[in-house]
Amino acid sequence: MPRPIRLNAFDMNCVAHQSPGLWRHPEDRAWDYRKLSYWTDLAQLLERGRFDGLFIADVLGIYDVYGGGRDATVRHATQVPVNDPAMLISAMAAVTEGLGFGLTASISFEHPYPFARRMSTLDHLTDGRVGWNVVTSYLDSGARNLGAAAQLTHDNRYDVADEYLEVCYKLWEGSWEDDAVLRDRAAGIFTDPAKVHGIEHEGEFFKVPGIHLCEPSPQRSPVIYQAGASARGRQFAAEHAEAIFTAAPTKEILKETVGDIRRRMREVGRDPYDARIYNLLTAIVDETKAKAWAKHDDLERYGDDEAALTLFSGWMGVDLSRYDLDDPIGEVESNAIHSAVAAFQQADPEGGEWTVRDIARWGVVGGLGPRVVGSPAEVADHMQEWIDYADVDGFNLAYAITPGTFEDLVEHLMPELRRRGVAPTEYPPGTLREKLFGEGPRLPDRHPGASYRDLGRSLAGAGA
Amino acid sequence: MPRPIRLNAFDMNCVAHQSPGLWRHPEDRAWDYRKLSYWTDLAQLLERGRFDGLFIADVLGIYDVYGGGRDATVRHATQVPVNDPAMLISAMAAVTEGLGFGLTASISFEHPYPFARRMSTLDHLTDGRVGWNVVTSYLDSGARNLGAAAQLTHDNRYDVADEYLEVCYKLWEGSWEDDAVLRDRAAGIFTDPAKVHGIEHEGEFFKVPGIHLCEPSPQRSPVIYQAGASARGRQFAAEHAEAIFTAAPTKEILKETVGDIRRRMREVGRDPYDARIYNLLTAIVDETKAKAWAKHDDLERYGDDEAALTLFSGWMGVDLSRYDLDDPIGEVESNAIHSAVAAFQQADPEGGEWTVRDIARWGVVGGLGPRVVGSPAEVADHMQEWIDYADVDGFNLAYAITPGTFEDLVEHLMPELRRRGVAPTEYPPGTLREKLFGEGPRLPDRHPGASYRDLGRSLAGAGA
Repeated sequence: MPRPIRLNAFDMNCVAHQSPGLWRHPEDRAWDYRKLSYWTDLAQLLERGRFDGLFIADVLGIYDVYGGGRDATVRHATQVPVNDPAMLISAMAAVTEGLGFGLTASISFEHPYPFARRMSTLDHLTDGRVGWNVVTSYLDSGARNLGAAAQLTHDNRYDVADEYLEVCYKLWEGSWEDDAVLRDRAAGIFTDPAKVHGIEHEGEFFKVPGIHLCEPSPQRSPVIYQAGASARGRQFAAEHAEAIFTAAPTKEILKETVGDIRRRMREVGRDPYDARIYNLLTAIVDETKAKAWAKHDDLERYGDDEAALTLFSGWMGVDLSRYDLDDPIGEVESNAIHSAVAAFQQADPEGGEWTVRDIARWGVVGGLGPRVVGSPAEVADHMQEWIDYADVDGFNLAYAITPGTFEDLVEHLMPELRRRGVAPTEYPPGTLREKLFGEGPRLPDRHPGASYRDLGRSLAGAGA
Repeated sequence: MPRPIRLNAFDMNCVAHQSPGLWRHPEDRAWDYRKLSYWTDLAQLLERGRFDGLFIADVLGIYDVYGGGRDATVRHATQVPVNDPAMLISAMAAVTEGLGFGLTASISFEHPYPFARRMSTLDHLTDGRVGWNVVTSYLDSGARNLGAAAQLTHDNRYDVADEYLEVCYKLWEGSWEDDAVLRDRAAGIFTDPAKVHGIEHEGEFFKVPGIHLCEPSPQRSPVIYQAGASARGRQFAAEHAEAIFTAAPTKEILKETVGDIRRRMREVGRDPYDARIYNLLTAIVDETKAKAWAKHDDLERYGDDEAALTLFSGWMGVDLSRYDLDDPIGEVESNAIHSAVAAFQQADPEGGEWTVRDIARWGVVGGLGPRVVGSPAEVADHMQEWIDYADVDGFNLAYAITPGTFEDLVEHLMPELRRRGVAPTEYPPGTLREKLFGEGPRLPDRHPGASYRDLGRSLAGAGA
């Protein structure tokens, strides 16, 4: 039996997520990000396609590396303006039943005590369909606005993240016992106070003595997402994440990445398949190969080289305005750029040496990830090939234009995937965790968060 | 022509807002606060009644004064569990067109930079129907969980609040000029960077050099709510607030309070009617006086004395568990309690000396505010009398049971108010600010927030 292909949609509460300049395409609706109907329509579309989830990226800050300032970034709306993603969830949850919502939130900008309440609230309101993309990095341009609290070094940030998650797990998993809430009208007892515990956390970065403010939600801990690419980020993902988002440019690199993640998961005592891994992909699909390529070429025409370079300069920390568009990419001082280009060249060995313009051109349709263009059968073949080769679970699908790219996937690709028996016709029952793994709704016992479930007993033991 | 009566609904993302024990009433749906449908149904109900808004209270912490701990509070679900109110707004906005949403958020728990983005996002998504209830106080039980950042003295808190609002106004009003966003597809310019300004704020508590992350929303600054009762709080309200929530127990005290607020507004250079003032009220209404009183007595039976005392102990900082229910209220060491009781006694001079039990009994139906029970005509008479006497604009209506109390108001009271020509049949057009004042959508020029509109020009001048 062929292996199922899991699909996830990638968006952001802004105008131009990963398709620089394409807000100018006449069919793009991205600038409607300010309107609820954009999001409720998108959620319903993705639910019709039985996507696992909508992953909403976020940055709290702006890209100010290109040209040494923000002007080009602001002009091209390169992920700015950018609105708060959490505010979108309840409206989308109200018009869907199966779609999951992966919300990006940085541990640098909010204390875990109110944050844990925010996520529990969303888990209640979505009936257990919420995930948290744990972000440990941030843009300096954002941190500068938040003062000293956000000024931590990169390595230190992961130590903070470990403790941040510990506080959250204690609140989510340990503070309220399963049978604490009685709702006993006759006895006049809503909650049994003996079964609600202050977490008594005293760590290096946080002191949280109190109880969680929320009663247990369907999943308790939301599904933990992680998208970090560094070795430390990958280790963090291996320890905590249940949905991991990679951005490998070739299937060979992806195979190595996925193998490394699953190996690390085994090493920390988890099942290597306790995390679903999605690789970034931009898929341009239409009824036929010719139509798909015509669509691709039309999209590409609306791309903007400078807009792309504002984004990539921000990502890589290299001011690409210092180069001419015709400069060979080899002259750019950025290992990240070289790795990406080497990988793209491997996929297209006859392309010759790339220039700065080439990397910009590549990036305008869905960013710096891999891309596939073709008929439904071609795209499905491509996906199945990567899945089988790299042991990945599915794809995190970026858009070129929105919702057009997603509409094409639902209209053209999903029927083909269903015909092949690799995509679901209905959602599995239950919470997001149950839909992803067939078990739940709570974290599996082998997840580190599960170790805080006996908090009440262990605190009582310590006090006795 | 009689003066219009403005209605506002008062709720909280928890089980028992201000009706201790009434979650046990068979018709109460309050424990469905975890479900989206509770909130979307409520929003649609209030919209049918043409309420100005739904004001969602919040506390980040628990009441732990009664009995010197949290046990009784947890047992009675006295405003705990309590979920995040901000997560409710977008779902309610999606099913309504005219209702406003007043969101409570404390300046003690989140940095103004991400908070300003959160509010701008909501203002976009609601098409300009959002208000912010600025809270400067907090429960110690909450602050203890958030570390040193939240440990400020009461007086200092208002200084922080002044600067917090200054940062927000600069971001909301001054960072993006009205014509900054061009969306010019032909020229490839989404935003003109010359019209977006870093706010360069350097104050005592916050340093925020950057630009606001959001493009201008319909109202820019949300409608500012204030509900503080101290002299300093009243001054803060006079300076900033556009909707002020009082809780005077008698119309005489209310007249004094409203007069003082409007006088203070005039003193700071605002129009004294630039704020709508709503007094707290619990109204139990039915077709006839007899039915209303039968309903009231039925509700009261479900009240819980101890639950009421957990709430009042928390509010007043006095452990009422140290008294016997039959103790005369005069023995309780709390000026706040004495003032409230004196006012209630004035309304009911034949009631004799109150005991601790009496104050608990009063409080179970809608908290410590004033109460009216009667036929639609009686309740309307009462409201008109208070409005005319005290120069107040309307009422902030607490529930005894939810949504039952609100259903009664919409079904029984609204037709009577409309018949008298004092309640609207349709919402005025535009944003919440326009619905409240007939002008907008932006802050009026005489509001202090409006002084930050020329930020770009003044920064350029300073730099020249």
